[in-house]
Amino acid sequence: MTSHEYYSELEDRWTRISSLSGAISLLSWDSQTIMPSGTSDVRAEQIATLSVLRHEEITSNLIADLLAKIDTEVLTDWQRANVREIKRVYENATALSTEIIDAHSRARHNCETIWRIARKDNSFDFVSNPLGELLEITKEIAAIKSDKFNVQPYDALLDEYEPGAKAENLDATFNYLEPKLTQLLQNVLEHQAKTEYAPIPFQVTEEKQKKLGLKLMAQQGFNFQKGRLDKSAHPFSGGIPDDVRITTRYDEQDWASSLMGVIHETGHALYEQGLPIEWRGQPVGNARGMVLHESQSLTLEMQACRSREFFEFLAPVISDEFDVSGKDWSASALHQKCLRITPNCIRVDADELTYPLHVILRYRLEQSLLSGDLPIKELPSAWNDMFMKSFGFRPTNDSDGCLQDIHWYDGAFGYFPTYTLGAMAAAQLFSAAVEAEPKIPTKLEEGDFSDLLAWLREHVHSWGSYYSTDEIIQRATGLPLDPSFYISHLQSRYMQ
Amino acid sequence: MTSHEYYSELEDRWTRISSLSGAISLLSWDSQTIMPSGTSDVRAEQIATLSVLRHEEITSNLIADLLAKIDTEVLTDWQRANVREIKRVYENATALSTEIIDAHSRARHNCETIWRIARKDNSFDFVSNPLGELLEITKEIAAIKSDKFNVQPYDALLDEYEPGAKAENLDATFNYLEPKLTQLLQNVLEHQAKTEYAPIPFQVTEEKQKKLGLKLMAQQGFNFQKGRLDKSAHPFSGGIPDDVRITTRYDEQDWASSLMGVIHETGHALYEQGLPIEWRGQPVGNARGMVLHESQSLTLEMQACRSREFFEFLAPVISDEFDVSGKDWSASALHQKCLRITPNCIRVDADELTYPLHVILRYRLEQSLLSGDLPIKELPSAWNDMFMKSFGFRPTNDSDGCLQDIHWYDGAFGYFPTYTLGAMAAAQLFSAAVEAEPKIPTKLEEGDFSDLLAWLREHVHSWGSYYSTDEIIQRATGLPLDPSFYISHLQSRYMQ
Repeated sequence: MTSHEYYSELEDRWTRISSLSGAISLLSWDSQTIMPSGTSDVRAEQIATLSVLRHEEITSNLIADLLAKIDTEVLTDWQRANVREIKRVYENATALSTEIIDAHSRARHNCETIWRIARKDNSFDFVSNPLGELLEITKEIAAIKSDKFNVQPYDALLDEYEPGAKAENLDATFNYLEPKLTQLLQNVLEHQAKTEYAPIPFQVTEEKQKKLGLKLMAQQGFNFQKGRLDKSAHPFSGGIPDDVRITTRYDEQDWASSLMGVIHETGHALYEQGLPIEWRGQPVGNARGMVLHESQSLTLEMQACRSREFFEFLAPVISDEFDVSGKDWSASALHQKCLRITPNCIRVDADELTYPLHVILRYRLEQSLLSGDLPIKELPSAWNDMFMKSFGFRPTNDSDGCLQDIHWYDGAFGYFPTYTLGAMAAAQLFSAAVEAEPKIPTKLEEGDFSDLLAWLREHVHSWGSYYSTDEIIQRATGLPLDPSFYISHLQSRYMQ
Repeated sequence: MTSHEYYSELEDRWTRISSLSGAISLLSWDSQTIMPSGTSDVRAEQIATLSVLRHEEITSNLIADLLAKIDTEVLTDWQRANVREIKRVYENATALSTEIIDAHSRARHNCETIWRIARKDNSFDFVSNPLGELLEITKEIAAIKSDKFNVQPYDALLDEYEPGAKAENLDATFNYLEPKLTQLLQNVLEHQAKTEYAPIPFQVTEEKQKKLGLKLMAQQGFNFQKGRLDKSAHPFSGGIPDDVRITTRYDEQDWASSLMGVIHETGHALYEQGLPIEWRGQPVGNARGMVLHESQSLTLEMQACRSREFFEFLAPVISDEFDVSGKDWSASALHQKCLRITPNCIRVDADELTYPLHVILRYRLEQSLLSGDLPIKELPSAWNDMFMKSFGFRPTNDSDGCLQDIHWYDGAFGYFPTYTLGAMAAAQLFSAAVEAEPKIPTKLEEGDFSDLLAWLREHVHSWGSYYSTDEIIQRATGLPLDPSFYISHLQSRYMQ
């Protein structure tokens, strides 16, 4: 057999693996949206079985054999990149023994289950031991991967969410951002204090909110032949590129939150739907990583749809859909309310200015936990002290502090930083898009996203995992990822 | 290792296989209910991949090895029955080569695709060749299984839907039923002609129909912690015992059809939800076959919910839900309309009196097709001639004749008879239930299904596949399956 034939067999095998991934993703979507409550154990068993089968398929001798036999010199550039990505997945999958994968999975499940009670009871002590056990296994995994891939242990964890990311760069970025953000926050709060602000109590039915959400999804370019909008406790974007399933939640007292949620998830969906169609089911055709993914949701939500221009389009649509009028519903009034900065203990409720401060706090704390510098028992007080420094007030309890997020208790260490890198990338990409297509802002006044989407398709989506995140950003904007775009964006939006 | 240990490993392997089946079933439910239209190719690929993996798991050497090593003497009765059922699945799965399974699957897909066009264009000729090819492969499969399992070729096909069923018995049953049904039909039509009948045009929104459907499901005993109601083009019952997904469709002009559809599918669902909980995921814990499955839907729909007693409960609920009143909406008026017999070319629109005539026609024709006595080209005219004999009028075109059902064009030969065996079993089981619990009919007047459900749980559902269908019916009713119960039921309902 020739290298082309081996390569072709490798692609076929991977199509099968992707079908398994797609099935897992639908089972998981279903469990978070419409699954009956009594089915969770059986569903967990189904997902576990399919995950084991997928792991067996990825780590099979056949894959190893094909990878060894293919001479990549004879392949096209995209095929070569695909082999590189398959190798990466294969090496990550084979790095860990099934014993440690199993132990990790059990420790996560155990810790997450207890965390739910701990958060409800507002008692970190309750979950402190299971978190300790999970942390030990996480360290072990980091050590094994650090050894195998010759990277720092924390970078080995980061890599799972953002291939190639390094704490060294994160430190530099966050050291630059933090003082600028805290200073800016203070200025903005002073600036805001000069204008009056009162929220308008206004109730909107779920049905009306959903109708508006669907309308805006269509406006943004979501392809409903290849995806849906549904409802879940926590909004997310799931599924596969040919069947993107985004969700939102509805609060009748707070229509803006659901709306911005839909816009955010649509940004994720557009990325998936714009991935290179000829590489469906192959690793090189997948989204590059969490940083670019978050950059796409935030380009839509924060850059495009919180702009003054977009509110010119949005305000009359809202008047129409909600049957309201008057100066409270003008573009400028709505926009002003939407940009109000109100520092808050809870990350998921944070605005774009304070969000990175929440992230930096978590990044610093998870590093200290992993290095052992911070004993687990001291996490709540360390959290609250650090929060005090950034925000000027303390969370009054653990549920508003170190118990608020599921991530650590579900084993996700190294995930938080990608949120802020994504926000930075969004500011930089949007700025480059507007420079290349200066009509983008005026088109947003008419609700026309086509130029923006075309630019994102060409410079980000269509590259899948062909280039690295850094390369994609460099090629799209002419510069490496640079936090100054984010700071400029915040300054011009909130201080003008 | 001991036999107990081998057995235990066999159960573990089967749990994995059942997880795959459960995943396939959810993927299939999703594709028939809410999947975006552009996803069908990818979904077909996912289902095919999981089906291949399941086939590989079932036919693996490990299963063969464990089956060979287990000494069933040392097992409990239920474990022994489980091994028997596993062996049955294993032997059926290994009977056919992957080549013929593949050829069959491709011929089905091809024939079904062309049938959709043929039915729309009302042209049997268009699909005649693909049906011929599918029939040839079906005969080949029947011959291989006939040889391996030492049964008649047609019985080998029947077995897939109803293990152990024999054409010999079907012939005797249908020869008994057919003349009685045609005579009864004539009598009933004469009898009906004496009373006036006019349908009341009345429009009910989908929302109201759904609310009523959900109310009746709850009334019947459907467990919403372990299942849901959704909407699809063709009503069906899918999912797994711990997550039963039933569907209906809504016609605003014809609320009764959706309602009876929900009641019917709830009967299927109650069977699944009542299967022995300690045998979930094992073959002995599965529903026995299509005959008992259909008997459960028809016990609810035809026996319980089309009874005069149930309409005493239903009429005021409908008045309330639809906000209607007057003599058109009285229990007796509604009941009379619901029982109106109107012979029709289309099986799925048939009432319980003419339904078996539709089935017998298909049974006779599929036997002739498989034996070669009936050349494919002559199917339309043979269909119409036979229909004329039973119903006294001819279908005016093929779409109302031999093109109406998907079954044959999708490769399902041997399936139709189970509908009528199920209807017979429903009459016999309901009669036995009422004999054992004489309060069942009066309780139905209050919408109370608990006694009926308890009896079905005890005598049918909880036995899973421990006994054969014949044994379950014999033990539950004291008699083998006997068509006279069905005839008595029809006579007393329609001639009084």
